[in-house]
Amino acid sequence: MKAVILLSGGLDSSTVLYQALADGCESYAISFDYQQRHRRELESARLIAQKAGVVEHQVVTFDLRLWGGSALTDDTIDLPQQRSLEEMSQNIPVTYVPARNTIFLSFALAYAETISAERIYIGVNALDYSGYPDCRPDYIQAMQSVFRLGTKQGREGNAVAIHTPLIDLKKTEIIQLGNQLGVPWELTWSCYAGGNVACGLCDSCRLRLAAFAELELSDPLAYAQ
Amino acid sequence: MKAVILLSGGLDSSTVLYQALADGCESYAISFDYQQRHRRELESARLIAQKAGVVEHQVVTFDLRLWGGSALTDDTIDLPQQRSLEEMSQNIPVTYVPARNTIFLSFALAYAETISAERIYIGVNALDYSGYPDCRPDYIQAMQSVFRLGTKQGREGNAVAIHTPLIDLKKTEIIQLGNQLGVPWELTWSCYAGGNVACGLCDSCRLRLAAFAELELSDPLAYAQ
Repeated sequence: MKAVILLSGGLDSSTVLYQALADGCESYAISFDYQQRHRRELESARLIAQKAGVVEHQVVTFDLRLWGGSALTDDTIDLPQQRSLEEMSQNIPVTYVPARNTIFLSFALAYAETISAERIYIGVNALDYSGYPDCRPDYIQAMQSVFRLGTKQGREGNAVAIHTPLIDLKKTEIIQLGNQLGVPWELTWSCYAGGNVACGLCDSCRLRLAAFAELELSDPLAYAQ
Repeated sequence: MKAVILLSGGLDSSTVLYQALADGCESYAISFDYQQRHRRELESARLIAQKAGVVEHQVVTFDLRLWGGSALTDDTIDLPQQRSLEEMSQNIPVTYVPARNTIFLSFALAYAETISAERIYIGVNALDYSGYPDCRPDYIQAMQSVFRLGTKQGREGNAVAIHTPLIDLKKTEIIQLGNQLGVPWELTWSCYAGGNVACGLCDSCRLRLAAFAELELSDPLAYAQ
C-alpha cells in the first residue's frame, strides 16, 4: 500500500513517517520549501527520509513571502520567545501561516493521486498548539470531503484517506511513540528561529524541551540556550 | 469589499474578474505558473489584470512536472486534438491535473486571509468540460467548509466566501456575459498546446471556437488552424 507522508523534518512528522512504515506502507515523502524562516528543517527532512528508506522524497518549492502574514514568512514580525506553555495555548499565535496545511495537503493530494497512493499521513495534533485551526479534527474531515469530491480517484470511490496518528496525542506521548518506533531525534529539527543551532526560546523549541523534560529524557539536539 | 480572483488569462476567469469588478470589489488577482504546457496564458493574465485595473496581481510559481500525471504538465502525454464536443464531455480527459483547483484555491485562501478579503472568485463551470471533478458544486461546497474550519478568519465566523458566477452557465452564456461586461477577448488565451498562436485543435480551442460560432460572433484571436 502506497502512502504519501508530509515530512517537515520536525519531531511530529518524523514520528508519523516511522508510523507509516510500521503500518506497512510503501512511503513517499513530501516536504515544502515555502521560504520559511526555518528552511534548515528541509535538510533534516532529507536526512530522515533517507535514513527511513522512503521510495521517493519530493520537495515542492514556492514562496509564501509573496504576501507574508506570519512570523514564519515575514522577517518583520518577531517570533514569540520564552513563552510558557499556558501562554502558547491561549490564542492563535503569530507563527500561524494562513492556509498552510490546506496548501500542503493539496500538493500531497496531487502527488498521491498521480502515484495512486491510498493514504496521506500528516502529523497534525489538536492538543498542543491547539491554537492552529488547521490542526483540528473537523478541519481534517472537511479536507477528506475535498479529497472525495475534488479528484478523479475520489469520484471513483477510492479517495485518498487522510491518516492523523498523532491528532489526540500529547507531545510527551508523541515522543514515547517515536521512541518505540526508533525515530532518530538527533536528525530532527523543530526550531522556528532560522539559525543553525536550535534557539531553545521559540514556542516550538520550548514545547519540545518541556516534553523531553517531563519524560526525564534528554533531547539529543544542541540548543543555543 | 476586497476579493481575490483566480485569473488564468482564459475566457472564463477573465469574465469572472470583470464580474468581480462589476460587483464593486476591490480586486486582487492571483495566477499560477505551474510549468504548464501553456504558460503563455500568464502573459494574457498579466495584460488583463493590468487593463482591468486590479489592485495587485500575484503570480505563484511551483512545478507540477515534479510528478506530472497530466497532458498539461507532462510532455510525453499527447494533447487530444480535433475531438467533438460530445467526445470531450464523456470522460475525465487527460488534461485533468490532479488536485489543481484545490491547490489554486488553497493559495487564494492564504492570500485572501492575509489581506482580509471577504471573497474569492473562481471561474469553474460544471456544464462544459463537466469531466473535471474539481469544477462541480459539491466540490466547491466542500472547499467552503475547509475555508470555514481551516483558517483563523473562518473560525472567527468570517470565512472567505467562494463565488462561482459561471458555475451554471454554458460557454455561449459566458461569452454573452463577458460581452456585457466588456471583457477584452483579444487579450485572453485558452489554447493548451503551448505555441505562440492558438492551435485551434485542442479541446480548449474547440470549445471556445464552437461557442463563438454558435453565437455567430467572431473570436478576435488568431488561430493556426
